[in-house]
Order: sequence, then structure tokens, then C-alpha cells
Amino acid sequence: MPDFTELREAVCRANIELQQKDLVIYSWGNVSGIDRDSGTVAIKPSGVSYDDLTPDKIVLVDLNGNVIDGDLQPSSDTATHLVLYHKFATIGGICHTHSLYATMWAQAGREIPCLGTTHADHFYGPIPVTEPLARADIESGYEEHTGQYIVSRFNDLDENMMPAALVANHGPFTWGSNPAEAVSNSVILEQVARMALGTVLLDEEAKAISEQLLDKHFLRKHGPQAYYGQKK
Amino acid sequence: MPDFTELREAVCRANIELQQKDLVIYSWGNVSGIDRDSGTVAIKPSGVSYDDLTPDKIVLVDLNGNVIDGDLQPSSDTATHLVLYHKFATIGGICHTHSLYATMWAQAGREIPCLGTTHADHFYGPIPVTEPLARADIESGYEEHTGQYIVSRFNDLDENMMPAALVANHGPFTWGSNPAEAVSNSVILEQVARMALGTVLLDEEAKAISEQLLDKHFLRKHGPQAYYGQKK
Amino acid sequence: MPDFTELREAVCRANIELQQKDLVIYSWGNVSGIDRDSGTVAIKPSGVSYDDLTPDKIVLVDLNGNVIDGDLQPSSDTATHLVLYHKFATIGGICHTHSLYATMWAQAGREIPCLGTTHADHFYGPIPVTEPLARADIESGYEEHTGQYIVSRFNDLDENMMPAALVANHGPFTWGSNPAEAVSNSVILEQVARMALGTVLLDEEAKAISEQLLDKHFLRKHGPQAYYGQKK
Amino acid sequence: MPDFTELREAVCRANIELQQKDLVIYSWGNVSGIDRDSGTVAIKPSGVSYDDLTPDKIVLVDLNGNVIDGDLQPSSDTATHLVLYHKFATIGGICHTHSLYATMWAQAGREIPCLGTTHADHFYGPIPVTEPLARADIESGYEEHTGQYIVSRFNDLDENMMPAALVANHGPFTWGSNPAEAVSNSVILEQVARMALGTVLLDEEAKAISEQLLDKHFLRKHGPQAYYGQKK
Repeated sequence: MPDFTELREAVCRANIELQQKDLVIYSWGNVSGIDRDSGTVAIKPSGVSYDDLTPDKIVLVDLNGNVIDGDLQPSSDTATHLVLYHKFATIGGICHTHSLYATMWAQAGREIPCLGTTHADHFYGPIPVTEPLARADIESGYEEHTGQYIVSRFNDLDENMMPAALVANHGPFTWGSNPAEAVSNSVILEQVARMALGTVLLDEEAKAISEQLLDKHFLRKHGPQAYYGQKK
Repeated sequence: MPDFTELREAVCRANIELQQKDLVIYSWGNVSGIDRDSGTVAIKPSGVSYDDLTPDKIVLVDLNGNVIDGDLQPSSDTATHLVLYHKFATIGGICHTHSLYATMWAQAGREIPCLGTTHADHFYGPIPVTEPLARADIESGYEEHTGQYIVSRFNDLDENMMPAALVANHGPFTWGSNPAEAVSNSVILEQVARMALGTVLLDEEAKAISEQLLDKHFLRKHGPQAYYGQKK
Repeated sequence: MPDFTELREAVCRANIELQQKDLVIYSWGNVSGIDRDSGTVAIKPSGVSYDDLTPDKIVLVDLNGNVIDGDLQPSSDTATHLVLYHKFATIGGICHTHSLYATMWAQAGREIPCLGTTHADHFYGPIPVTEPLARADIESGYEEHTGQYIVSRFNDLDENMMPAALVANHGPFTWGSNPAEAVSNSVILEQVARMALGTVLLDEEAKAISEQLLDKHFLRKHGPQAYYGQKK
Repeated sequence: MPDFTELREAVCRANIELQQKDLVIYSWGNVSGIDRDSGTVAIKPSGVSYDDLTPDKIVLVDLNGNVIDGDLQPSSDTATHLVLYHKFATIGGICHTHSLYATMWAQAGREIPCLGTTHADHFYGPIPVTEPLARADIESGYEEHTGQYIVSRFNDLDENMMPAALVANHGPFTWGSNPAEAVSNSVILEQVARMALGTVLLDEEAKAISEQLLDKHFLRKHGPQAYYGQKK
């Protein structure tokens, strides 16, 4: 078996950061990362406190969910992560939390409109919400279906321009090119969700920003025309 | 007299945690624990700061409220705790606070609807609110009556599936199998109450989740079919 | 001149606590204390940061506002404090801040109704708001008039049962038997104001608690029938 | 070239303070300062974390935006800063953030009314919001146009009495006599924005304070008649 030390360390650090960034309490969130060459996913063990997490406790599973290495049960949300890795072929890390403000929008079943440049800097349009899961999809294969509902909602969305989804009645999933970026997208989503709540309290009819402003901000930071930050 | 050192230490730690988790200021909360074999309840002394709390200051009372050991007066809410220990035969710890968000719902006299899976993971249905205490029940035996109003509200509820109640115009009580779990249920209730406030601000008509989703999440974590966490 | 070392130290500590309890930023609040025997008031110097505050910088003034001792200008709100010491004969300390939630209510010109037992434990009824100051009363003798508007609002209130007032369009003043108690009443007022905001968001028609519940909670903590805390 | 060590240090410290005061996460804000004699502006490099910021990384540009000294790209918002330095001839520092509460108002496109003395102590009237940028003004020269929209909004405002603007759909810019004061005005604006949100939630029709009260508070702290603080 190849050496997944670096992947495990990256996934461990990313999970611990959930707590440092105040996105979780107890064991309410999980981050995974993938090695695309071997199809190996590293993920948090279920129900383990972030204070007790070390790289050797990170569980390795294959893309069918079989445990490859690790003494602990993987996150109960593993099946959701695997669906996303299957369908979103370029992502390298996934993060799930119950962060306060993103969860408020998920519970209300409202997509988060793009109300300002903070949002546009990171997400290309409104943050989508899935359909509520149908009864049969809850009762059997619940976690896998959760992933499928996200994927279905992304039918006409590009996961690289919209690295976040709200699962209705549940909470946010975010992703990125690696586990750390998946977490920073969750941090940013939480800020955006909080700003958007205040905005709609000030103006329930608040309108999304123009397409031009969305393009300007998103493309100033992403893609070939980006001019934010330092040249690499 | 048996040695209650461990019980006192557990109750002391649980009370101190109230402050560490930002559920209380000054001396605004109390946690107790019970030794069921001897019918002995250990509880915070009244009006003592958490900074000054040590296990030897924890007061021991019997189930009739007689002080068995301790130099200080027990919490003024002791009679409420005792009613709950009498009627909820399997609980091992009780926690009472005036935490901000749970108290907002208690003051509004609104039960907290189960708006998402965060709630469903821990509480099997809406968080109930008691009736407001009648005049006579306030004027005499107030603290005991407070406990009776909670018990009365649980007529058709199972205290093991709903380890929390909001006393109308007052604040939350939670319980668990031991003092630490009573406190963690208060922490979780506070998160749930805060998410629910934001949710109803986004959608005043927000609906409770389906029975299937409630069952899935609660039973994934509790009872014989639970598959969250590690096998013991 | 008598030695006011203890008074200065108490006033200095109480001012520093404003910052520790997150009631102020920069130099946005002031606490004073009085020695009733000599009629000497110790108060924060104007515009000085809490980080730089030491007992020797606390300014001593007489009840007419003449500086008795100190190299610095006293707080610009000194005249307000002096009116309160004149009219509220038994108080020993006064605190003024622009704390977030109490100021929201003051800015809205709404008294804070007594919506729960947290409030009733400390304030005997709704937190009163002054009338807005008339034009002439702003243009000349502004700070003294601010005190007079508070006193006027207390025409039929007992300052010992209601140790707080909201100055309309401005913010809270609280008091107590000494400077530390004046500050703790500001801390508690802020919690009560925050809970009350959430409560009216959940129920705009939220009703004040009954007179019996108010009496029970206030008198359980205050006066000859109090049974909260430890016997002294 | 003159020695800009002090300017760079002041700008570096002011940028780091953004993070310490919880106004920014990641690299979401920038502060600049100007040496008026030489027309040299020192500004944060683009996309650099505050944790990694040192004075030698601060970029020097002239008033036309040419980099004079520094190995890194200046902030992508540099052109906005330069417009403000051109038109607001007496200011010495500028700060831009996406702080939560000020951004809520900017996203709602609502000016922040002067609802109390906290606001009046620092800003002489409502905090203005710019017009939304026209399509053509976004697509080319976006950052420069942002500055021009601010300046245009200040046609009949005095930048020394109103050291803040909200850019519609974007966020706040503040300024002052030096970089540190630009930052403290951002801190104060955030408090004022938060208080104002709570106030309009309590009373959607909340009225601005009277002209007399605004004058009294602003002029008690600013200008020749000021009597707040210590004589210099």
C-alpha cells in the first residue's frame, strides 16, 4: 500500500481547524481528502472529538466505501462524501459542518442570494439548496442519497465555480482542491450566510447583485484573468 | 456514610463547565447529580461563583431535600431538581441555566420546533414549554411546583428521548445519564435554539422536518439501531 | 484631606472591568464611586484608555463638581453622575456605558419589558427610558440635564429596586451600593436586553411576566425575605 | 528616496489590527497611509495574510499607482485608495474591510441613520451609501470607479466630519488623519452598524436623533469647542 501519511496529516489538520474556526462543537463535522491516483479517501472517524484526533486515527476507505486502513469506523457521512468524489471529478477535499448561519438558511430551505461582493469573491451565484429527501430516500441509503440530491441539484451548476451546497433541513457541504480549501470555503460560507441574514432583516426584498459585478469579483480572484493576490 | 467523592467531583466539574461553555454568568445556573442506590443528590451551593467552586463545597441532600453533608445552603432550585429525580427514574444528572437563546424561546413561550437534523440528532421532537405557573403555585412552594409543571408537561413524552424542557418565562432545564451529559444537552439546546431563531427570522412559517428524517437522525445516534460513533 | 486610596482603587478596578466584560471599546464608559461622609466622588478621567488606567489617575471631585485631587479632567459625564448621587441618596457607585444591546433599546426609545425571571431576579419591573432631552436642555448644561431626566423618570420608581435607566437615544446608566455592583448591574442589564430583543423577535406581542412571578424572583434575592445565596 | 520606515511600520501595524479587532478574516481588508510631502502611498500587498505581514512587505506607490518600492503587488483596491487621497486632501490613512455589520447595511443599500449618541460622537450624520456602479463602470477601471462613486456621494459632505462611506453591494471604507485612525473609525462604524440593526429590529420606524443632540455630541469631541478628553 502506498504511504498516505501526508494525506492523513492534511485531513487531520483540516478537521481540527473546524473547531479552531468555531464551525463545530463536539464532533459535529467532518473533513475528507482524496488521493485521485489510487482512489483512496481519508476521512474523520465517527464521533471522535477534535481534541483527540491524530493522523493515525484518520480512516482510509476506497471509493466503494470499504475500509482500507484504520481501526475506527469512518464518519457516518462517508457515503455522502463518496458520491461527491465520484461525480465532482476534480475536487480534492470535502467538508461538512452544522455551522450556525449556513444551517439557518438550510433549515429555512432558502438559497443564499448573492447580495454582495464578499459572496461574489468566492461563490459564482446563489448558494443552492437541495430538495428535501423523499421518504424512501431517507429510510434506506440515507447518506448516499444525500450526496445524490446534492449532485442532482448541480445538474446545471459547475462545482468549481460553486464549491458549496446547503442540504435542506440539514446543513452545508463545501469542497475544494484539497481538504484545507474545503474548510476555508466553509468558513467563508458561514460569513456570507451571516451577512445575508442581516441584509434580509434590513431589506426583505434585497436584490442579488448584477451579473457584471458578480463576474468582476469572481473572475478577479479565479481563472485565467485573475489579478487578485501575488503572481506565482 | 458512603464516600461521595466521585459524585461531588463530577458535579463540581459539570458546574464549572457551565461557565467555560458560556452558558452562565455570575452564579446563574446549577448542576446536580444523583447516587440512585442511596438516594443522595449532590448539588451546587446557592449563589457561589464557579471560580470559587470546589468539590467539598458541593452540598449533599436526600430526596426529601434534607441536607446530609455540606456547610453551605444548596441551590435555591434544589426542590425543582428533586421533583425531576423522583419522576424521571433513570436520569443521573440535571442542569439549569439562563442561557441566552434557550431563554429567549422560554420567555416567548414558544416550543422550539424541530427544524433540522442538528435538533433531531439530540432531541426527539419539539422542545416542550411548560404552562406558566398559576398564581398560587408561585406564591407557595414555587421551586417544587416548577418541577411539577415540567413533569406534567411530560405526561406523554419520554424523558430519555427528550432530555430538555423550557420553563415558561424562565429558562431551560436539561438532564442526562450523568451530570456531564446534562450539561452537554444544555450546550446543544443552546445551539439548536440559536439556529431555530435564525431560521424563523428567515421564514416565520418554517416547518418541522418529516417524521422519517427525525427518526433517521435520532435513531442513528440513540438506541439499539444506532450506527453513529464507535462500537464499544 | 482623608485618604481615598481604597475608593480610588475600587473605582479603577470597576472601570477596568467594563472592558473585561465587553461592555466598552476605547474609552466609551465610566464608573464612579462616592464617599458619603465627605461627599467626595471618585470618577474616571475623560478619554483615558482602560489599559492605561491606574488608581492615581482617578479624579476626585466634590458634589458641586469641583476637582479636589487629580491632574486629569474628570469624565465629561461627571455632571450626570453628580445629579444621581444628589437625588439617589443611598447609592454608592454609578456606571455608564454604550453596551450594544442596552443601547439598541435606548435608541429605539423602548423600555425593556420584564419578560422573564432573569430580568425579575435583578430589576423590579420594566427598565425605564427617559424622555428625549428638549432642545434647550441639550444646548446648555447637557450632562446635568441628562441626570435630571433620569431622576424625573424615577418620580414614582425606587432606585434601589430599579438600579438602571436607559437615556433615550443614548444608552444605559446603572448604579449600586458600590462601584463593583454598579458594573455588575450593567453586565446583567446587557444580558437582559439581549434576551429581550430575541424574545420580541420571536413574539412581538410578548407579555410581561405576572406580578406574582416578579415578586417571587425579585424578593427571593432582595430584601428581608431573600433566601437565595448564603446567610451572612 | 526618503526613508519611509515609519510610514511602513504604521501601515503594517494598522493592517494587523484589522485582524485583532475581528474586522477581517483571511486577507479581506487593507489599510494604507500617505506621506503628503512626497505623494507616496504605503499599502498592504494583495492577498497576503495578516499573520505574515511585516513592514518590508508593505508596498510603496505614487499617486498615479506606479510601484516605487516593494517586491509584491499592491492591494487590488489600490486605485480606490488613490482616488480618495486625490480628492480628500487632508486625510492621512484609509481602511477597507468587509466587516459583518457594516457590510449588511452596504448590501441592503441603506444608509445608517444616526440613531444615537454613539454614532453622533464619531460621524456627523447618516453614514452615506454610494450609488450602485453602472455596468460600464464595473467592466473597466472598476476599482478607480469605486473611488469616484464615493467621492461623488461626498459632493455635499465634509470628509472630515464623515470619515466613512458604504459602497453599495460591497462594504465600508473609512479614513482618518493616519492609518491607525482609519482603522479605529472602522471599528467604531462596525459597532454603530450593529447597534443600528438591533434598533431598527426593535422599531423599523426609528427616527434619527435631533440636530441639537447630533451637534452636542459631535462637537463635544471634535473641533475648537471640544471638551471631551484631556487638554493637550
